[in-house]
Amino acid sequence: MREAELLQSIIERSRSTLKPPPGAPLDRVRVGPGDDLAVLAEVSGSLLLGVDQVVDGLHVNAKTTPWNVIGSKAVRRSVSDIAAMAGMPIASVISLVLPQDATKVQFDALHDGLVESAQACDVPLVGGDIAVHLSPGPLTISVTVLARAPEGGAVLRSGGRVGDRVWVSGELGRTLDPDGGGAHLFFEPRVSVARALHGQLGEDLHAMIDLSDGLGRDGARLAKASGCTARLRAIDLPCARAASWQEALCDGEDYELLAAVSPEVDLPASVDGVQLTCIGVLEHPHQAGGCLLERPDGTVHCADEDGWDHRGDV
Amino acid sequence: MREAELLQSIIERSRSTLKPPPGAPLDRVRVGPGDDLAVLAEVSGSLLLGVDQVVDGLHVNAKTTPWNVIGSKAVRRSVSDIAAMAGMPIASVISLVLPQDATKVQFDALHDGLVESAQACDVPLVGGDIAVHLSPGPLTISVTVLARAPEGGAVLRSGGRVGDRVWVSGELGRTLDPDGGGAHLFFEPRVSVARALHGQLGEDLHAMIDLSDGLGRDGARLAKASGCTARLRAIDLPCARAASWQEALCDGEDYELLAAVSPEVDLPASVDGVQLTCIGVLEHPHQAGGCLLERPDGTVHCADEDGWDHRGDV
Repeated sequence: MREAELLQSIIERSRSTLKPPPGAPLDRVRVGPGDDLAVLAEVSGSLLLGVDQVVDGLHVNAKTTPWNVIGSKAVRRSVSDIAAMAGMPIASVISLVLPQDATKVQFDALHDGLVESAQACDVPLVGGDIAVHLSPGPLTISVTVLARAPEGGAVLRSGGRVGDRVWVSGELGRTLDPDGGGAHLFFEPRVSVARALHGQLGEDLHAMIDLSDGLGRDGARLAKASGCTARLRAIDLPCARAASWQEALCDGEDYELLAAVSPEVDLPASVDGVQLTCIGVLEHPHQAGGCLLERPDGTVHCADEDGWDHRGDV
Repeated sequence: MREAELLQSIIERSRSTLKPPPGAPLDRVRVGPGDDLAVLAEVSGSLLLGVDQVVDGLHVNAKTTPWNVIGSKAVRRSVSDIAAMAGMPIASVISLVLPQDATKVQFDALHDGLVESAQACDVPLVGGDIAVHLSPGPLTISVTVLARAPEGGAVLRSGGRVGDRVWVSGELGRTLDPDGGGAHLFFEPRVSVARALHGQLGEDLHAMIDLSDGLGRDGARLAKASGCTARLRAIDLPCARAASWQEALCDGEDYELLAAVSPEVDLPASVDGVQLTCIGVLEHPHQAGGCLLERPDGTVHCADEDGWDHRGDV
């Protein structure tokens, strides 16, 4: 079973089960599975809730990466989803399964990484659960984050409109830059950039997603959720030093923001010290794909599957 | 490393890190790690947030238990923590790590169990994350629940006072009853019983915990958190049919409620169709332990470690 299939199956089935059953309206669920976080209607606004995991062998290598860095990455990955919705962090809870041979020193480092990054990201760690594998099994970290939606509601993936400009924060491809190693471990979730963007743009900020699987894949997700196709220009991608545009397109773990913004407004060159770059537009949905990339030679490439592990295809 | 040690280490360290750092008050965290759920101050009351996991080999046997039952158990375990605080369920998010050889049929059954029980327990599944082990590893399910605290605030473990009567809901030892097999898989989280108790007793409901690790252990937790010692009477334990009082004391997974209630008030014989039994009192803290049990012969036994896996000691 491929994870993408499983996720799709869950999203479809959850959508149907989230329909209010007779006599038990679930109108508290404004957005269920399928966006960066769920959106829950509450008396005083909306809450955002979501979970992400880091599993040794899949997302990190626990043999070669210090465990405090693993803990930090696990928290930051989940916080990046708060940024994607322009949310205000509230708190986090974490569950761990430790391998049998984990040492106290490793555990202490992991715990330091979790607690310190939770504090730095303003999602204090308020609860958790720990187990130790009975048989061989990998370090598994599951981080749930709770946040408050901004006034006017969370910025969803699905709000993009035909004609919107597509903007990206920061630089892309830092992980693949031979000198910039570790960007996938040491990134800064773009919470304050997202908050500033939302503050400046208000309702002109139509849709947003964080880039965790690659510009191609995540761009296609935003565009398809919005009923559009994104057309991006390779020559405009803000490539990290030494990264080619192909690498910028496929780096799975930039954790930058990708936003669809009304064409009526112009963004400043940077927000909160982070550069902003217009890299394309949203068009009417196109059979050729959800995210089309114009190569420097003018030919067009469907980038829907371009991301981590799929670099060879471009 | 023992899990209990790890948890204690986390609780202690988190308490210190939850102290508001200079310039960044975290007064949104009313109760951090160490109770059934965390309590977060929000504009319109308090939110409750917590996570629990089910790992194959530790909490269930995925070879002999149908996967829909495993999913259901995973959700109900977490919802039981909402009951322990008299909370009102809002929603849940779930992360999964599947073994490599999991089949689509197993996954579908698991997903059905998760979604259906989440719906039945009024914590609609609003998000999740799925991974598949790259190397041998167990099925791992992490369920986070979000709830709203009742008016007047959540019922904590720590609110018990000397002189309080100790009450328990339902029957104890059902899992160990040879005819009642599966009680640890098919239990009903006591959310409505807890809500009814809180509604009737108000501030006279001083402290509460759900019995997930055994009456001895969980009783000691409530008593110690309240700065007391619980003194329970073996002859008063509401034993399930065929369960001895030793089994009632040690069944790790009753998922009944244990409450400390003002001695001024009398509880009805049942609430919401579930019987209530007074089984002891809270006393001044005692060197002999947090939970003392008077055996039928009048001798006293320290039950602090009595629970799942520790039955032989009584």
